[in-house]
Amino acid sequence: MSHKKLFIPGPVEVKQDVLDACAVPMIGHRVPEYAELHGACVPLLKQLLYTKNDVFLFTSSSTGAMEAGVRNCAKKGAVACMLGAFSDRWYQISVQNAKKTAKCQVEWGKAIRANMIEDHLKTGEYDCVLLVHNETSAGVMNPIEEIADMMRKYPDVVFVVDAVSSMAGVKIEMDRLGIDVLLAGSQKAFGMPPGLTVCAVSQKAMDRAKTITDRGYYFDFIEMSKFSVKNQTPCTPAVSLLYGLRHQLQKFFKEGLDARFKRHTDLRDTCWAWLREYGFELFPEKSFESVTLTCAANTRKVDVPKWVKLVSERGYVISEGYGKLKNDAFRVAHMADCTVAELKECLGVMSEELKKL
Amino acid sequence: MSHKKLFIPGPVEVKQDVLDACAVPMIGHRVPEYAELHGACVPLLKQLLYTKNDVFLFTSSSTGAMEAGVRNCAKKGAVACMLGAFSDRWYQISVQNAKKTAKCQVEWGKAIRANMIEDHLKTGEYDCVLLVHNETSAGVMNPIEEIADMMRKYPDVVFVVDAVSSMAGVKIEMDRLGIDVLLAGSQKAFGMPPGLTVCAVSQKAMDRAKTITDRGYYFDFIEMSKFSVKNQTPCTPAVSLLYGLRHQLQKFFKEGLDARFKRHTDLRDTCWAWLREYGFELFPEKSFESVTLTCAANTRKVDVPKWVKLVSERGYVISEGYGKLKNDAFRVAHMADCTVAELKECLGVMSEELKKL
Repeated sequence: MSHKKLFIPGPVEVKQDVLDACAVPMIGHRVPEYAELHGACVPLLKQLLYTKNDVFLFTSSSTGAMEAGVRNCAKKGAVACMLGAFSDRWYQISVQNAKKTAKCQVEWGKAIRANMIEDHLKTGEYDCVLLVHNETSAGVMNPIEEIADMMRKYPDVVFVVDAVSSMAGVKIEMDRLGIDVLLAGSQKAFGMPPGLTVCAVSQKAMDRAKTITDRGYYFDFIEMSKFSVKNQTPCTPAVSLLYGLRHQLQKFFKEGLDARFKRHTDLRDTCWAWLREYGFELFPEKSFESVTLTCAANTRKVDVPKWVKLVSERGYVISEGYGKLKNDAFRVAHMADCTVAELKECLGVMSEELKKL
Repeated sequence: MSHKKLFIPGPVEVKQDVLDACAVPMIGHRVPEYAELHGACVPLLKQLLYTKNDVFLFTSSSTGAMEAGVRNCAKKGAVACMLGAFSDRWYQISVQNAKKTAKCQVEWGKAIRANMIEDHLKTGEYDCVLLVHNETSAGVMNPIEEIADMMRKYPDVVFVVDAVSSMAGVKIEMDRLGIDVLLAGSQKAFGMPPGLTVCAVSQKAMDRAKTITDRGYYFDFIEMSKFSVKNQTPCTPAVSLLYGLRHQLQKFFKEGLDARFKRHTDLRDTCWAWLREYGFELFPEKSFESVTLTCAANTRKVDVPKWVKLVSERGYVISEGYGKLKNDAFRVAHMADCTVAELKECLGVMSEELKKL
C-alpha cells in the first residue's frame, strides 16, 4: 500500500517540502557555500533555544549526543535520572563509559522531582546531571523549571538535558534555566529525517570538557568548537540534513515560535479530548504529561496490538505501549509539522477501528 | 550559479537518482518495512566486501566508526599508521580515548610498509593495528596485501582498516585478507550523501570488544550486533540514507562488481594520461598511488589555488593539495558513479583554465 502517516514518537512524519529540501546536489564541506548553510542554521537554533551558547551539529542519532554529554561533562560522576526506556539508556551509556553513575530512578509514569536529584548532589560525589526532559517511552515530561531552580544551588554541577522529543515543540529557555547541554535529534519535533543532532553547549560545559582527557574525538565538544567558529564541523557532516534543517528553521520562524508552541499544546488538547470522549485515561502522573506525545493508559482493556494493526492498515501509524507497557498503554505522537486537522484524521480512524475490536 | 560538479575526494557528486531514492516518506525503525530495507542492504554489502562477517550501519561520519575501531578493539594498545591528515587523525582519536598508541609514521606521499608495522607488533605491546587503506590527503594507497600477509603472524592483533575513500571503488576482499574491521562512509565511492557508515566486523573483533568494559555505547559493536540480528540498529538510523544505500547497492550489482572496479581503474588511467600530457607528475611514491583519487605534484609550479578557483567558476570542483600541500599538489577525485566521459569534461575544463594561468 502507499505511505502510512506516522503518529509515532519518532521518526515522525516528514513533509514532502522537507524531503525535497534535503534532496539537493551535494556540496563540499570545506567551501564557503557550506559555511553559509551551517551559519544560517546556528543563529536560528540559538533563537529557538533562547540561548547565546554555541550550538553544535552532530552527524548522529540523539544517542550519540547523549554519550557526548557523559564523556565531556562527567568527571567525578553523573546522576542519571531514570524514568523510562530512553532515560534508562543514559544510565547504561554512562556506565559503559566507565563513569561513576548514580541511579535517580522512579517507576514508569512518574516524574523526576528536584529533591530526588538533590539527594544525590548533596553527597558531593557527582558533577553532572543527566536529565531526559520528555521521556518518550512513558510520555512523561519532567518539571524542568523546578529542577533548574534546584540546580542553581550546585554551580559546579553540569546540567545536561536531553530534549529529544520536546525541542522545537515545547519552549525551553536554555539560558534562563541554566541548562549546560541541550540536545535533540532531527527526527522528532524538528520534522526531519533522522541523522542529525542539535547540541547547544554552555561555557561551563566547555570548561568541564577541557579538564577531561579521555573524552574521545567524534563527540568532543572542544574539537566541535574549533570548527564551529568557522561554521564547519570536524568531520564530514550530513549535508543533506543541514539543507533540511535550514528549511525547517525558516518555516518555524515564519509560523512564529509562540504559534508553533501553541499548535503543539492544541494538538495535545485535541488528543486529550479524544481520550476523555472514548473513556481512556492518561498514563503519566497528573501535571507531568508530555505535550508532544500522549501516552494513554489502556483503561478500557482493549487489544492494543490488534487495534494498532487495524489503524495501520488504514494508513495511520500509532504506537503500542513501549516495551513492558505493550498491552497496557498506547502512544500517539503529535509534533513537528502535524496540524490539528491531521491529528483529527488519525483519531477518527482510531475511533472507527476501536469499534471493531 | 547552478550546481557545480564535484571532483573532490568527498562528498563526491551524488546523482539525481540517488537523491530521489533518499527523498522518500519516513518509516518507523521498529517496523517490518525497516527490517526489510536494512536486511536488503546487509547481504549486498557482504558480497561487496567479500565477507561472511556481520556488517553494521552507523549513523555517523566515517570518523565515528574509526573511533569505534579504537574503542572496541584496542585493549593493550594500538599501532596508528600515519601517512597524512586522515590517518594522523586516527592517532589523535586513539590518544583521546586514552589508549596507548604507537606512531607508525611516514612522510606524506610515502606508503606504510608491512615491516614498519611489524616493528611495533614485535614488542608485544599492541593488540590492534589502525590502517587507512587509501589516504585521501596524500592520494596514497597502502599495500594491503603485503600488510595482511604480515598480520597473519600476529593472530592476537585486531586488524582495523579504514577504506573510506576506496571501499566500493576498489576490490577489498575482507575475509581473504583477514581484515577484522573494515569501514567506510557513504559519501565517497558509494556515491551517496554523507551521514551513514558501513562497518564490517569479524568474530575476532567482536571477541576483543567483549573484553573491553569502557567501549562506550553509540559505537559499541556488541550493542550493534544485538540489533543487527533483527536487521535493526540500537538507535534511530538515518533511514533516508538506507534507502539510498539499497538503491546504490542494487546499481553496483547491475553494473557488476568487476566492471565497477575496472571503471575505477579506467578513471585513474584517464586522469594519469592527462597528467602526462600536461607535464604533471604523481605526488605519491610509485606503485602506491590511489585508484579513486589522483594527487598530482605541482611540478609545473602553477598557481594551484587560482587554477582551482577558475575551474570552479566553470562548474567543476577539484581540490588543492591538502593542508600543507595546498600549493604543492592538486587532487582530482574520480570515484562512485563518475564516468570516464564526465571525468574528461572536468579535465577538459582544467586544460582550458590552465592555459589562462
